[in-house]
Amino acid sequence: KRNGYPEVIYGEGKTAQQIIDIMYSLQSHQQNVLCTRVSPEKFVAIHQVIKAAVYYAKARCVVLNVQVMATTSTSIAIVTAGTSDMAVAEEAAVTAEAFGNRVQRIYDVGVAGIHRLFAHLTEIRQAQVVIVIAGMEGALASVVGGLIDTPLIAVPTSIGYGTNFEGLTALLTMLNSCASGITVVNIDNGFGAAYSASMINHLSQGGKA
Amino acid sequence: KRNGYPEVIYGEGKTAQQIIDIMYSLQSHQQNVLCTRVSPEKFVAIHQVIKAAVYYAKARCVVLNVQVMATTSTSIAIVTAGTSDMAVAEEAAVTAEAFGNRVQRIYDVGVAGIHRLFAHLTEIRQAQVVIVIAGMEGALASVVGGLIDTPLIAVPTSIGYGTNFEGLTALLTMLNSCASGITVVNIDNGFGAAYSASMINHLSQGGKA
Amino acid sequence: KRNGYPEVIYGEGKTAQQIIDIMYSLQSHQQNVLCTRVSPEKFVAIHQVIKAAVYYAKARCVVLNVQVMATTSTSIAIVTAGTSDMAVAEEAAVTAEAFGNRVQRIYDVGVAGIHRLFAHLTEIRQAQVVIVIAGMEGALASVVGGLIDTPLIAVPTSIGYGTNFEGLTALLTMLNSCASGITVVNIDNGFGAAYSASMINHLSQGGKA
Amino acid sequence: KRNGYPEVIYGEGKTAQQIIDIMYSLQSHQQNVLCTRVSPEKFVAIHQVIKAAVYYAKARCVVLNVQVMATTSTSIAIVTAGTSDMAVAEEAAVTAEAFGNRVQRIYDVGVAGIHRLFAHLTEIRQAQVVIVIAGMEGALASVVGGLIDTPLIAVPTSIGYGTNFEGLTALLTMLNSCASGITVVNIDNGFGAAYSASMINHLSQGGKA
Amino acid sequence: KRNGYPEVIYGEGKTAQQIIDIMYSLQSHQQNVLCTRVSPEKFVAIHQVIKAAVYYAKARCVVLNVQVMATTSTSIAIVTAGTSDMAVAEEAAVTAEAFGNRVQRIYDVGVAGIHRLFAHLTEIRQAQVVIVIAGMEGALASVVGGLIDTPLIAVPTSIGYGTNFEGLTALLTMLNSCASGITVVNIDNGFGAAYSASMINHLSQGGKA
Amino acid sequence: KRNGYPEVIYGEGKTAQQIIDIMYSLQSHQQNVLCTRVSPEKFVAIHQVIKAAVYYAKARCVVLNVQVMATTSTSIAIVTAGTSDMAVAEEAAVTAEAFGNRVQRIYDVGVAGIHRLFAHLTEIRQAQVVIVIAGMEGALASVVGGLIDTPLIAVPTSIGYGTNFEGLTALLTMLNSCASGITVVNIDNGFGAAYSASMINHLSQGGKA
Amino acid sequence: KRNGYPEVIYGEGKTAQQIIDIMYSLQSHQQNVLCTRVSPEKFVAIHQVIKAAVYYAKARCVVLNVQVMATTSTSIAIVTAGTSDMAVAEEAAVTAEAFGNRVQRIYDVGVAGIHRLFAHLTEIRQAQVVIVIAGMEGALASVVGGLIDTPLIAVPTSIGYGTNFEGLTALLTMLNSCASGITVVNIDNGFGAAYSASMINHLSQGGKA
Amino acid sequence: KRNGYPEVIYGEGKTAQQIIDIMYSLQSHQQNVLCTRVSPEKFVAIHQVIKAAVYYAKARCVVLNVQVMATTSTSIAIVTAGTSDMAVAEEAAVTAEAFGNRVQRIYDVGVAGIHRLFAHLTEIRQAQVVIVIAGMEGALASVVGGLIDTPLIAVPTSIGYGTNFEGLTALLTMLNSCASGITVVNIDNGFGAAYSASMINHLSQGGKA
Ligand SMILES: Nc1ncnc2c1ncn2[C@@H]1O[C@H](COP(=O)(O)O)[C@@H](O)[C@H]1O
Ligand SMILES: Nc1ncnc2c1ncn2[C@@H]1O[C@H](COP(=O)(O)O)[C@@H](O)[C@H]1O
Ligand SMILES: Nc1ncnc2c1ncn2[C@@H]1O[C@H](COP(=O)(O)O)[C@@H](O)[C@H]1O
Ligand SMILES: Nc1ncnc2c1ncn2[C@@H]1O[C@H](COP(=O)(O)O)[C@@H](O)[C@H]1O
Ligand SMILES: [Mg+2]
Ligand SMILES: [Mg+2]
Ligand SMILES: [Mg+2]
Ligand SMILES: [Mg+2]
Ligand SMILES: [Mg+2]
Ligand SMILES: [Mg+2]
Ligand SMILES: [Mg+2]
Ligand SMILES: [Mg+2]
Repeated sequence: KRNGYPEVIYGEGKTAQQIIDIMYSLQSHQQNVLCTRVSPEKFVAIHQVIKAAVYYAKARCVVLNVQVMATTSTSIAIVTAGTSDMAVAEEAAVTAEAFGNRVQRIYDVGVAGIHRLFAHLTEIRQAQVVIVIAGMEGALASVVGGLIDTPLIAVPTSIGYGTNFEGLTALLTMLNSCASGITVVNIDNGFGAAYSASMINHLSQGGKA
Repeated sequence: KRNGYPEVIYGEGKTAQQIIDIMYSLQSHQQNVLCTRVSPEKFVAIHQVIKAAVYYAKARCVVLNVQVMATTSTSIAIVTAGTSDMAVAEEAAVTAEAFGNRVQRIYDVGVAGIHRLFAHLTEIRQAQVVIVIAGMEGALASVVGGLIDTPLIAVPTSIGYGTNFEGLTALLTMLNSCASGITVVNIDNGFGAAYSASMINHLSQGGKA
Repeated sequence: KRNGYPEVIYGEGKTAQQIIDIMYSLQSHQQNVLCTRVSPEKFVAIHQVIKAAVYYAKARCVVLNVQVMATTSTSIAIVTAGTSDMAVAEEAAVTAEAFGNRVQRIYDVGVAGIHRLFAHLTEIRQAQVVIVIAGMEGALASVVGGLIDTPLIAVPTSIGYGTNFEGLTALLTMLNSCASGITVVNIDNGFGAAYSASMINHLSQGGKA
Repeated sequence: KRNGYPEVIYGEGKTAQQIIDIMYSLQSHQQNVLCTRVSPEKFVAIHQVIKAAVYYAKARCVVLNVQVMATTSTSIAIVTAGTSDMAVAEEAAVTAEAFGNRVQRIYDVGVAGIHRLFAHLTEIRQAQVVIVIAGMEGALASVVGGLIDTPLIAVPTSIGYGTNFEGLTALLTMLNSCASGITVVNIDNGFGAAYSASMINHLSQGGKA
Repeated sequence: KRNGYPEVIYGEGKTAQQIIDIMYSLQSHQQNVLCTRVSPEKFVAIHQVIKAAVYYAKARCVVLNVQVMATTSTSIAIVTAGTSDMAVAEEAAVTAEAFGNRVQRIYDVGVAGIHRLFAHLTEIRQAQVVIVIAGMEGALASVVGGLIDTPLIAVPTSIGYGTNFEGLTALLTMLNSCASGITVVNIDNGFGAAYSASMINHLSQGGKA
Repeated sequence: KRNGYPEVIYGEGKTAQQIIDIMYSLQSHQQNVLCTRVSPEKFVAIHQVIKAAVYYAKARCVVLNVQVMATTSTSIAIVTAGTSDMAVAEEAAVTAEAFGNRVQRIYDVGVAGIHRLFAHLTEIRQAQVVIVIAGMEGALASVVGGLIDTPLIAVPTSIGYGTNFEGLTALLTMLNSCASGITVVNIDNGFGAAYSASMINHLSQGGKA
Repeated sequence: KRNGYPEVIYGEGKTAQQIIDIMYSLQSHQQNVLCTRVSPEKFVAIHQVIKAAVYYAKARCVVLNVQVMATTSTSIAIVTAGTSDMAVAEEAAVTAEAFGNRVQRIYDVGVAGIHRLFAHLTEIRQAQVVIVIAGMEGALASVVGGLIDTPLIAVPTSIGYGTNFEGLTALLTMLNSCASGITVVNIDNGFGAAYSASMINHLSQGGKA
Repeated sequence: KRNGYPEVIYGEGKTAQQIIDIMYSLQSHQQNVLCTRVSPEKFVAIHQVIKAAVYYAKARCVVLNVQVMATTSTSIAIVTAGTSDMAVAEEAAVTAEAFGNRVQRIYDVGVAGIHRLFAHLTEIRQAQVVIVIAGMEGALASVVGGLIDTPLIAVPTSIGYGTNFEGLTALLTMLNSCASGITVVNIDNGFGAAYSASMINHLSQGGKA
C-alpha cells in the first residue's frame, strides 16, 4: 500500500508454497515483503525458489526487498528483560527496520539487576518510542515507563513456567502498570509492537506512517 | 514536571481532603492539576475549598489550571461504539485536552450500524492518533484499525453482561485484533489511552510529550 | 432417521475399523453417511474397504451416499475471516451439502480489509442463513450481523495465539456481539453450525429439517 | 426499519428521560418500539410521559405500538427448566410477540423431573423453532435437542450458586451439547434468542425476518 | 489394609521397575494388588517379571490377586454417555470388581438419544449405587439422577473439544446438577468413583467398606 | 414421594407467598416439607400464615412436619474446619435430620490445630458416612479421608478471601484429594451433601433412601 | 502458646460478642491478644465491654495486652507501592509489633517514581526481612528483591481495577518474579506476611519464633 | 556476588554452549556455579567440555565448585507429599546444599497416611526452616504448618490431573492455608524455595544470606 513500506505476510500456518505464491505476486507489484513466523525449514524451501529472500533467523522473519527504503534519523529503542525474550525482540527489530526505522537494541536489562538498566538509560531516553519486551512477571515495563517521557509499547512474552500461564502474567502486569504512557499488545506480538512504534516514529518525522 | 502539563491525581480511594491537600501543594508549585475518578459528592467538598476547581461531570474529572497551555493544531480522535462508553470517552477527552491536545469526539458509531462509522471516516483519518473505546465485544477497534494508517489506542470498557466479564471480552478482542497498528490499555482506562495519545500527538508536532 | 438426510459419525477418537463397521451397518439400512474429523491416514484405511466412500480433504470429512438428495434452491452462505479458517469452513460446507443445501463460499473477507467483505455483500444477503467463521478476535460476526437481516450462526475458530486462548476470544466476541440475530456454536464446530443452518434453510423451503 | 417490526432499545444504563426521547423520536417515524431491561421504577417515570407505553413486568420490557403487526400461524416454543428462569423467558416471549410471532410458554420442565418435559413434548415438537432457557447446569437444552428436529436456541441463565459462576456453567453445557441443532446466545440474553428465533419462524413463513 | 481388599498403586509416573517392586512387597504380605494408569508397554515389562499379573487393557489396569474375594450380591451400575468414555468406565469397573463388587455396565446411553437410556432404566434402578460417566456437556448425570433414588457418583471425562476445556465443562455441569443425590469426583477419576461406590455398596451389605 | 421423607423446596429466589403456597399444597398431600435458604425475614412472613412451621436459624431452613419419621440407629458425622462453616454445616445437619438420620456434629476441628481433630476421631469413625465441610484451603477433607474407611462427602464453603475465589480453592482441593473415598458437591451445598449421605446411611440400614 | 506472643483472632465474620468472649477467655489465661479485621463499629461494641482493648484504626486491628513483650533490636521493613496499600501495610505492622518486632514503615515508594525507592534503600537494607506490599501490577516486589540480600515476603493487594482482578495480577507478578528470595502470601494478607517475617526476625535473634 | 555463594544459572531454554560460556566466565572470577533445569542430554555436552561439573540427576542440576563452602550447623527440612514430588524436592535440596545449608530430606509423607508424617515430626521440628513440597491438593503444607513454629515455605508441584490444572490447585491451597507462618513460591519452583530458606537459615546463624 503505502510507498516503500513492505506488505506483511503472517507465515504461521501457511505452507512454503503459499508464501512463495504471495511473495511472487507482491514482488510483481513492486512491493517489498516482510514475512513473519517462518521456521528455518520453511525458509529453506522458500529460498530454493526465491533466491533474493533473506532470512533473519533469530527473528524467524523473511524479507524480500524490491526497492530501498529510507531510514529515519530518530530511533525506536527495543528493551528486553532477559535473553529468552530475544526471539520476540528480533521480530520487533526486523519489522521496525523493514519499515524504515533506526533501531537500538538494549537486551537483557531486567529488573533483578536494575543497575544494568540504568547503564542504558540515556540511550533509551533518546528514542522517540520505546518497546519493552519481558516475560516472567514483566515488571520491566513499569520501571522503564517511570523513567521516560515517550510512548512505551509493552510486549509480554510467553517465557516463564507455572503461574506464568504462557505470558498471561506479564500481560496483566503491563496492563495494570502504575506508570503512565504504556500501551500493550498480545503475548509474543513483536511484530504488532513494532508496527505501531513505526507509525509513531514516522509521525514524529512529520509524515504519517 | 514538564512545562505546562498538569500533574495527575488518581482520585479513586482518596478522600476529598486528601485531594485538596495535594491540589494546594501542586498549585503552590505553579502546576496545573488533573484529578480523575472523582464522584460528584467528592467534588462538592473540593469545590467548597478550592473555588477555581472545575468539574467535568461526564468525565468525573476535576481540573485546576494555574497557567494556560497551548493546544496542538493536530488532533486526537476519540471514537466510541455506544453511548454507554461515554464516561470512559470523556475521561480520555478531558485528559487529552488538559494535556493541550485538540480533540474530536465521534461517539456511538458501533459496528452494528456500520454506515454511521463510515459517515465519520474522513474526520477520523485526519487525526494523528485515534482512541477507540468500546465495550461488549469491542469489534469497533478492529474495524477502525483496518481503515486508518495512524496509531490506534484501544480502550475496552466494562459495558456488557454475562460473558462480557466486565470488559474482559472487549479487552481480548482488542489484543487479538487482525488489524495492525492497535495497542491496548486496561479496561475503562480512558486516562491512560489519552496520556499515550497525547505523547504521540505532541511527538508529531516536533516536540517530546 | 429423516428421509435422505445422512446419519453423522463423529470420527474423532474412533478407529478406521470402528468407522467402517458403523458405515456398513448404516449403508445396509439405506442411509447416507457423513463422517467428520477423519484424518487422511484414517481415510486411506477406510477407502481400502469401502470404495464408494469419498474424502473431502480440506473438510476432513468422508461421505458415503446410497441415495441422491435433492438440493434446496435457497442457499446457505459460509463466510470466513481468514484462509486459516478454511478447515472449519469446509467442515461446515460439506455438512451443509450432505444435508441437501446449496452453499455459497465467501472466504477470507476479514474486517482488517473490510472492502473485500463489501464486495460480497449482495451475495451474502441472498442467502437464507449465513455462517460466519472467524478466529483471532472474531469481529467479522458482528460486522456481517449488522449488515444482514437473516439468521447468522457464528463459529469461533482456534486460530490465533497468546490471549486468543485457542478460540476463546473469538467465542466471547461472538457471544457479546452488539448486532442482533447472532447465535453461536462451540469453537471449531463447523458441523454444528451447518446442521442448524440446514434446519433453518429447509424450514424456509416449507419443510422441517 | 423493516415494516411493522419494532425498533429495539436496550434500556440498561439509560435514564428514563433518554428512553422517552428515543421513544418519541421513533413514534414520530411510525415505528413500534420495544424497550428491554427497564426497571419498574424507570417505567413509572416513562409512563407519566408516554401513557400509551405498556409494561410487561416479568419481562422488564416496555412496548409502545403505533401500528398492529400480524401474528404468524406457526409458533416459537419457549421452554424453561425452573421458575427462576422466568424473567429471561418472558424477555424472550415479549420480544417474540413484539416481532409478530405466536409463542408457546412451557415453563418449569427441568430434567430433574423429566416426566414433566415429556408431558409437553407434542406441543414442543409443533413449534418451528424452540428456545430452551436454563440455569444451574443447563442440561435441559441437550435433552430437548435430542428429542426435536427443529432449530433450538439455548439461553443460559445466571441462576445458580457456587461453581455456577453466574451462568457460565450453563453456557458451557449448551456449547458442548452432544445433541445436534443447538446454537447458543449470551447468558440471560432472552432478547437475542427471540430475535433469532423470530427470523427463523418468519423465514419458515416464506418471508425474510 | 482391610481383609481381602487390594492395595492400590497409582501407576502414572512410576516406572515398570518401581511398580514391580511395590507389587512384590505387597504380594509377600498376602495383599491383592490393583495398579491403575498402566500403559500397554509398561505392562509388557511388568508381565515379563510377574507372570500372575493380569492386564485389563481398556481400563489400563493391572490386577495381581493372591487371594479370592467374595463378590457382593448387590451391584454397582456404571453408565456412560458415549463410547469414548469407555476407558474411564473400565477403570471404574475393574476397580469395583477388584474390591469385590458385582458390576453392571450400561454404556453409550447419552442424552442425545434418550430412548436408549430409558431402555436400561429398570436395570439401573436395581443397583445400590450408580456411577455416571460423561464427557462433552455431562448432562447424563442430571437425567439419571432425576430418575433414580440411590446415590449417584458422577465422573466427568476429558472427552470433547473447544470450550469443553478437557473435562471442565462436564465437571461444572455435574457439580451444579438440579437433581439431588449426586456427588462428583475429579475429571477422568474412574478409580475414585468406584472406590467410593464400593464403600457404599458394602455398607448396604451390612459391613463397612 | 418416598414414605415419610420430606419434599424439599429451594427457598432462594422464591417469595414468602410462593413458599407458603407450595407448603400448603404439600401439606394437603400429607407430605413433610423442608425448605432451605430461607432468610429470617422471609420466615417471619411464612410463620404468620403457617404456625406449625419451625425455623432453624443457623441452617436458614424451615421444617413443616405432618408425620413423624423414624430415626436411624447409625449416624452421619458432620465435621467442620472452622466456626464460619457452621451455616453450611447446619443446613446439612437439619437436612439429614429431616430425612430421619441421627447426626453427630463435630465442629471447628480444622487442620491448623490437628490435635482437636484427633480428639474426635473415634466418634467420627463410628459414623456410616462422614460429611466434611471446610472453606479456605479445604485441607480437612484429605486429612479425615486418610483416617477413615467410610464414604466421605466433602463440601467446600465460600469462607475465605483473595485467592480463595469464594470457595473455588476449597473445591479444587477436595476434588484433587490424595485420599481415596472422597466425593464432592457444589460450594456451600450442605443440603446436597446431606441428601446423598442420607441415601448412603439408609442403604446401610437395609433400605433404599 | 509461646511465651508473651499474642493469640490471634481472625475477626472477619465474628460478632463483637464472639470476639469479646474469646478475648475474655484468653485474658484469663494471661495471653496477649491480637484481633485482625475488626471494623470501627465492631470495635466500639468491644470497647464498651473491654476497656483495655486498643484499636489500630488504619490496621483495623484490636490489641489487648496483659503482659509486655520485649522488642527485637533488629527490624522488619514494610515497604508499600502506594498510599492505597496502607490498610494492608498497617495490618502487617501492627501484627509485627504485637509479636515484638521493631518495624520500619517505608510507604508510597512505587516503581512509577523509582527515585523515591532509592532514597530509602539504605534503610531497607538494614532490615532482617522485608515485606513488600503492592497492588496494581505489583512490580515493586521484583525491584526491591533485586536490590536486597535478605528474605522478602511479598503481599499483593486488591488495589486496582479492570484486569487487576482484585489483586490477582499483583499476586501473579510476585509469584513469577525474576528476582530470587521472594515468597508470597494471599492477597491482602498483611497478617500472614508479618507472622512469617516475625518468625524470621526472631530466628535471626537466636530464638525460634 | 556474596562470598562463597554460587552464582545461579537458569538452564531452561539455554543451549549447552551458552551454559558452558557462562560457567567459564564465572569460574574465572572464582565463583561457584549452580545451574538448574538441565536435561541429562545437555549435561553430557557440558561435561565433555567442563570435566569438573557435577550432575545431580534427580534434581536436574549441575554444580561447579571452585571453592569449598562451610555448611551450617542448623538445617533446612525438605518434606514432600509423594514420590512424584521428588524432582522438585531435589532441586530444592541441591540448591540449599550449594548455598551451604545442612538439609534433611523427609519424603513421601503425604496426608493420606498421616502417621508417616507424625513419625518424622521431631526431626522436622528441629529444622530452622521447613520446605513443604506437594502436588495434587497440596494439603500437606497446612498440616505441617499447624505442627511447627518455624517459617514454612510451600512449593506446589504440577503433579496431578484434571482439575489439578498443572499445580494451580496445590498453589491455591497453600496460599489459603488456615495455618499461620506459610509463604509460597511458584509451581515447581524448588530453587526459589531453597534460596529463601537458605537466607533464613543463615540469618539464624547470625549472618545475612
Ligand atoms: N483514571 C486513571 N486510571 C489509571 N491511572 C491513573 C488514572 N488517573 C491517574 N492515574 C495515574 O495515577 C497517577 C497518580 O496516582 P496517585 O499518586 O495515587 O494520585 C498519575 O500520575 C497517573 O499515572
Ligand atoms: N465435527 C463434529 N462436531 C461436533 N459434533 C459432531 C461432529 N460430527 C458429528 N457430530 C455429532 O456426533 C454425533 C455422532 O456421534 P458418534 O455417535 O460418537 O459418532 C452426530 O450425530 C453429531 O450430532
Ligand atoms: N487412577 C487413580 N486416580 C486417582 N487416584 C488413584 C488412582 N489410582 C490410585 N489412586 C490412589 O493413589 C494411591 C496410591 O498412590 P501411590 O502411593 O502414589 O501409588 C491409592 O491408594 C489410591 O488412593
Ligand atoms: N487477617 C488474617 N488473615 C489471615 N489469617 C488470619 C488473619 N488474622 C488471623 N488469622 C489466622 O486466623 C487464626 C484464628 O482464626 P479463628 O480461630 O477463626 O479466629 C489465627 O491463628 C491466624 O492463623
Ligand atoms: Mg513514562
Ligand atoms: Mg490500521
Ligand atoms: Mg442482523
Ligand atoms: Mg435435535
Ligand atoms: Mg435421584
Ligand atoms: Mg478414607
Ligand atoms: Mg534479593
Ligand atoms: Mg506453624
